[in-house]
Amino acid sequence: MSQFWSDLVHKLTPYVPGEQPKIDNLIKLNTNENPYSPSPKVNQAIAKANNGKLTLYPDPGASDLKQSIADYYQLNSNQVFVGNGSDEVLAHAFLGLLKQDKPILFPDITYSFYPVYCGLYEIEFNKVPLNDNFEINPEDYAIENGGIIFPNPNAPTGLLLGLTAIKKILNSNPNSAVIVDEAYIDFGGETAISLVQDYPNLLVIQTFSKSRALAGLRIGFAVGHPDLIEGLERIKNSFNSYPMDRLAIPAGVAAMEDKDYFKQTCQAIQSTRTQLSQFLTEHNFTVLPSQANFVFAKHESHSAEDIAQALRKQNIIVRYFNQPRIDEYLRITIGTDEQNEQLCQALKDILKP
Amino acid sequence: MSQFWSDLVHKLTPYVPGEQPKIDNLIKLNTNENPYSPSPKVNQAIAKANNGKLTLYPDPGASDLKQSIADYYQLNSNQVFVGNGSDEVLAHAFLGLLKQDKPILFPDITYSFYPVYCGLYEIEFNKVPLNDNFEINPEDYAIENGGIIFPNPNAPTGLLLGLTAIKKILNSNPNSAVIVDEAYIDFGGETAISLVQDYPNLLVIQTFSKSRALAGLRIGFAVGHPDLIEGLERIKNSFNSYPMDRLAIPAGVAAMEDKDYFKQTCQAIQSTRTQLSQFLTEHNFTVLPSQANFVFAKHESHSAEDIAQALRKQNIIVRYFNQPRIDEYLRITIGTDEQNEQLCQALKDILKP
Repeated sequence: MSQFWSDLVHKLTPYVPGEQPKIDNLIKLNTNENPYSPSPKVNQAIAKANNGKLTLYPDPGASDLKQSIADYYQLNSNQVFVGNGSDEVLAHAFLGLLKQDKPILFPDITYSFYPVYCGLYEIEFNKVPLNDNFEINPEDYAIENGGIIFPNPNAPTGLLLGLTAIKKILNSNPNSAVIVDEAYIDFGGETAISLVQDYPNLLVIQTFSKSRALAGLRIGFAVGHPDLIEGLERIKNSFNSYPMDRLAIPAGVAAMEDKDYFKQTCQAIQSTRTQLSQFLTEHNFTVLPSQANFVFAKHESHSAEDIAQALRKQNIIVRYFNQPRIDEYLRITIGTDEQNEQLCQALKDILKP
Repeated sequence: MSQFWSDLVHKLTPYVPGEQPKIDNLIKLNTNENPYSPSPKVNQAIAKANNGKLTLYPDPGASDLKQSIADYYQLNSNQVFVGNGSDEVLAHAFLGLLKQDKPILFPDITYSFYPVYCGLYEIEFNKVPLNDNFEINPEDYAIENGGIIFPNPNAPTGLLLGLTAIKKILNSNPNSAVIVDEAYIDFGGETAISLVQDYPNLLVIQTFSKSRALAGLRIGFAVGHPDLIEGLERIKNSFNSYPMDRLAIPAGVAAMEDKDYFKQTCQAIQSTRTQLSQFLTEHNFTVLPSQANFVFAKHESHSAEDIAQALRKQNIIVRYFNQPRIDEYLRITIGTDEQNEQLCQALKDILKP
């Protein structure tokens, strides 16, 4: 508390990210990182850029990175915006597109950074309850609003919305920006990027932190109509000219270009997810059908909090959210097969009568 | 222009950074980068961190980097804030400390990002004219205000304000945050960091982009009373949990720790600055007494714009600002001795009768 803070600072409730403990030999299944290393080509690109030129500013437009994303999705680079992690991209989108006279809409159970951005930029919002199966119902978004945002798959549920349902939301909201936050889309979902040509109000946001195994480098991007992208650029250029550094730009390019590695690791994660879901179901968990790199599950008799604490004693961290409707659930990131076996063994020990 | 933009986006006038042309063999004296490479220890630290762990999120608090800055200046780490370049740190400081009911103050000739931040966060400001010698007069800041910010040395003039003058401004503003933006302080000035223990309203902002030769990596920091720092942390944690990546953090630590390299390169730049200032004076330029890694100079007969264009034809870029009071001046970044000789030779050719 300080007399020198702006009024806004007093009112903020900042986001609290999942723990990043500095403990060796931890099985870290709490922040949905990729259990596999990034593509070796990423490390090669960084090694190449790790030279005396670090004394020079980066390309403020990060044009190589935008081009590689545009090429991957067969877009023009003026349909692509990049930022320092998708959290920064989201922040700019909240200020640039979602700060409107009417309240915006997002699910009641969702990425908990959304209400934080609303606090930062003084944006009113209404939470739209998920149904009893934790699903987004497109009809619920056919009401007056200043904009719409939801993750797809949703977090922390892992549930996917199909493109037909997304079109329904877009069609009933031609005058609102609709933002689909696809942090987890590559683990089984179909991206809405194919819809941006038809919907000038659609912005799709993705990250390199999950499927591209680069949480440590902070790269996120948005895809949409060039006018939406220009709005984000105007915010970015009023905030920080150079958010992407001289190592992240070529690293991101290399990550986009190594399609084989990307596919292999995404498939490995999906296969481990199937194994884990099966194990959990067999051990009396209810497991939501996840299309993300995590599962969301509750046990029929053991409390989620107790299980999380017991796992922690065995050096395994998972995520527990102490909040209404989901406080019986654990969110467990998909690890390697080996980590998964250790997790299952630990769960067996904890759950045995 | 788009119907989906927030009202704010329509009103913004984004910052335009100095050119980053992709031309080989350019003598780039337009954006005040360091002509020397970063410390080799920086490259070693990056090489060490360029591994499979890039798949994991970085430490959200970047505590190693804060500690190394704290150690360097003999502070506690809760007096240090870090961000993705000092532009991001400045942005958070504008929103967290300078967004007040009363207009803030900054010099009329100064870093042109300040009014842009004011546009982004809807902060009113009054520009305080520099005197006829382009100096900041501390008495001019003894008026009602919502906060004060100025660079020291000022940009693009390079003129330094001594600590006595800064204390004068602090003493006459006990109820305002006073932000000293020390991007160029290491090239001859005395930092105001020694004053933060005595002035709870003082925030000092520095960057790794100039004296530490890391413009390409995006590292900036702020030093002040722990309460001021907490205000910035609250903004940052409502914007982006992880602005500093897994390569920038150890690179920044290495740059802080290699004090010998830092001193050598800063001294080399100061020595070249002396040579260039002498040359320019001998060739009928008025040169302001710069304490930064650039000089600000006007020729008695040739227009600044003409000289800039003629230099450009010889692959030398300098900065020209087409704005009142300074449109006869050129801002020239200090290069290596070799670059400086080429610059002087080119100027001789251009100016010869």
